Amino acid sequence: MTYGLGIRLDAGIVLMADTRTHAGVDNVARYRKLFTWQRPGEAAVGLCTAGNLSLTQGVINAVEEGVASAGARAPSVLDAPSMFAVAQLVGDTLRQVSAKYGAALSSAGVAASASILVGGEVGDGGPGLFLVYDAGNFIEAEADTPYFQIGELKYGKPILDRVVTVTTPIPTALKAGFISMESTTRSNLSVGLPLDVAVVPTAERRFALRRRFEDSDPGWKALSEAWSRGIVELLDRMPEVE
Amino acid sequence: MTYGLGIRLDAGIVLMADTRTHAGVDNVARYRKLFTWQRPGEAAVGLCTAGNLSLTQGVINAVEEGVASAGARAPSVLDAPSMFAVAQLVGDTLRQVSAKYGAALSSAGVAASASILVGGEVGDGGPGLFLVYDAGNFIEAEADTPYFQIGELKYGKPILDRVVTVTTPIPTALKAGFISMESTTRSNLSVGLPLDVAVVPTAERRFALRRRFEDSDPGWKALSEAWSRGIVELLDRMPEVE
Repeated sequence: MTYGLGIRLDAGIVLMADTRTHAGVDNVARYRKLFTWQRPGEAAVGLCTAGNLSLTQGVINAVEEGVASAGARAPSVLDAPSMFAVAQLVGDTLRQVSAKYGAALSSAGVAASASILVGGEVGDGGPGLFLVYDAGNFIEAEADTPYFQIGELKYGKPILDRVVTVTTPIPTALKAGFISMESTTRSNLSVGLPLDVAVVPTAERRFALRRRFEDSDPGWKALSEAWSRGIVELLDRMPEVE
Repeated sequence: MTYGLGIRLDAGIVLMADTRTHAGVDNVARYRKLFTWQRPGEAAVGLCTAGNLSLTQGVINAVEEGVASAGARAPSVLDAPSMFAVAQLVGDTLRQVSAKYGAALSSAGVAASASILVGGEVGDGGPGLFLVYDAGNFIEAEADTPYFQIGELKYGKPILDRVVTVTTPIPTALKAGFISMESTTRSNLSVGLPLDVAVVPTAERRFALRRRFEDSDPGWKALSEAWSRGIVELLDRMPEVE
């Protein structure tokens, strides 16, 4: 399983993903699921993947090749005129990869689905966050729904619903995202640290933060423990119903 | 959908269930899913149901008939020697009902699954909480896993994992259950108030609480608002990671 989160704030785009994958409970591995490319000041694009790893790696490789060849062997997302165009490019690639392997995967009884979060800022269209589906179609996060989740989304949703709006500052959204991720790792063993995080502040067209948090990270541990203690204390202070 | 919760504490048994059912989003109705029977001081049994409503109502009617006829037309759960025997009786009934309608339901493409929480205290076996599956088999809540959820369980699980242990006092467990339910109703429209709650304190063999909380209940609203405010404040006080 995977838990990936994208938040679209007035202040910028936040992307997070865990790094655990598994094919059955006896085959658990660690794979990066958050990928970033940038030409600082001009273009910054992040992708967060969930679903069949062979499909999503196919997409990531195609995007990587486009950026590495500066668009010679494949279009480069960093040269796209807008985030909408980036989402289209990623969607088209995912559809092609899915079409190539989908039938064979299905006949082998393997789930051939994947979804990808696309966030960042390129060109003059402003920052954008998109959720791309198998078929290559996609939706954009807007003020009414400022976040997208992919993979194991349910355990971590309540905290986001209570806290995150489009006007939330980036540090608060980061903390909410951490708690959302922490709640999920507690309740579902197939989601686990390390956690990759990336932030693209509005109009900067660069990553202000690209970091991996290990399980042993003192900041992460302090947050995790403070939150657990805080929740118990908060519940104690709640009014009794009746 | 449904969200049902049972907690097995040293201090007693707590049962909660919402009352929303739906067959598609355009057919939403209100049905009771928490049922209780007692002979105060001797026996108190509560059932919480999820899944196909026709199957679970079949079980409830059979239990009801057993209690109403004092065991003449069907065995009465209130005369069972232990909660284990009650779980067996409920499981056998669910298996019979499932067997009767299961094939026809499946061929009509309708999910023929159901699950039932059985909690309370009868006879001399002490209090007990069981989760009964379709096949009539069941498991018992123990100190390591002091709660069971049925139906839409994920959104409401993190708060329980953080707060509830077997030594938690009943009022705290009630509040945790309310928050768990409130988080679920926020994130999944197919779970909704009113909420039914029942409590059987250990060794009392009677319901100390059997109550329905409406959406408009001032205590519920106060708790819901205080919690939302508290979470936002708690997040603000959390240490920044980095």
